[in-house]
Amino acid sequence: MPKGGNEVTRILGIDPGSQVTGYGIIDMAGPRATHVANGSIRVRDEELGAKLRAIFEKIRAIAGDFQPNEVSVERLFMHRNADSALKLGQARGAAIVACLTQSLPIYEYTPTEIKQAIVGKGNAAKAQVQHMIKVLLCLKEAPQADAADALAIALGHGYRREGLLRMPGVRGIRGGRFI
Amino acid sequence: MPKGGNEVTRILGIDPGSQVTGYGIIDMAGPRATHVANGSIRVRDEELGAKLRAIFEKIRAIAGDFQPNEVSVERLFMHRNADSALKLGQARGAAIVACLTQSLPIYEYTPTEIKQAIVGKGNAAKAQVQHMIKVLLCLKEAPQADAADALAIALGHGYRREGLLRMPGVRGIRGGRFI
Repeated sequence: MPKGGNEVTRILGIDPGSQVTGYGIIDMAGPRATHVANGSIRVRDEELGAKLRAIFEKIRAIAGDFQPNEVSVERLFMHRNADSALKLGQARGAAIVACLTQSLPIYEYTPTEIKQAIVGKGNAAKAQVQHMIKVLLCLKEAPQADAADALAIALGHGYRREGLLRMPGVRGIRGGRFI
Repeated sequence: MPKGGNEVTRILGIDPGSQVTGYGIIDMAGPRATHVANGSIRVRDEELGAKLRAIFEKIRAIAGDFQPNEVSVERLFMHRNADSALKLGQARGAAIVACLTQSLPIYEYTPTEIKQAIVGKGNAAKAQVQHMIKVLLCLKEAPQADAADALAIALGHGYRREGLLRMPGVRGIRGGRFI
């Protein structure tokens, strides 16, 4: 991972979900992080094909519009059950493939790593993440929970790539050009 | 789902997996099924990005080369554990999105429905599926297990769309054009 120096690196954070996928974009210039955009893709009541298509299309459009340099995605280990893990996996697969089609390098972090980096506590509550994102990115109000999680995923990666912290067990996955 | 009559409908069957994804293509002309191609995409030792990219690219290439009219994908409910379900979901998401980018209508069936349709027994062993696929498609030898499963998924859908059998709980998912 190249060190950014004072060069700006734009990071797209994604919190995939089978019902709501949060996304957040920040610019890192050395240790300084600036908020660019955030939002969520809601696919609660749609059937599988429409859900996956919406996630794939929207993430592709966001990557096309905002031209991030790197992507950071949440990596989950623990699931309530196998059925919800399968659904989450499908959504995550669609989001990752959307980034791969744009030749973006993708990194993944566990929620514990991200919470540790942003809140200083691996088991922090969602509201604490929302609060710290508001403070760290100088926002007027806290973003919606899924978007705040996505910004935290982007910011945690930004801190790590600038050498501002060490996260255990971080694994980078790098996609090549393929469309 | 339009009735085919003697018109030829080309069906791509996919058996997604996090290590091996089988595929099989058949032509249905009324009740007559003809084998077109089969094979498997092996991504056992690669990292996640490379795996999903390989599945997405290869399925897109197969759909581009063979121009199927419809896609049939295995739908799993039961998993050994949540971690393997997440991995399978990611592979399945990549394969489905690849078909959606080609605007193909996608149908899904459980393994039980497919085995019931092809072998007459919902809990048939893999070797029985391989044998019946060899017999029903007049092949000189039985295809490799994942490819045979994919051909069975294509053939089960072919039988159903021609009104040759009734499968319980079948649900169609239809993708729109989006690239």
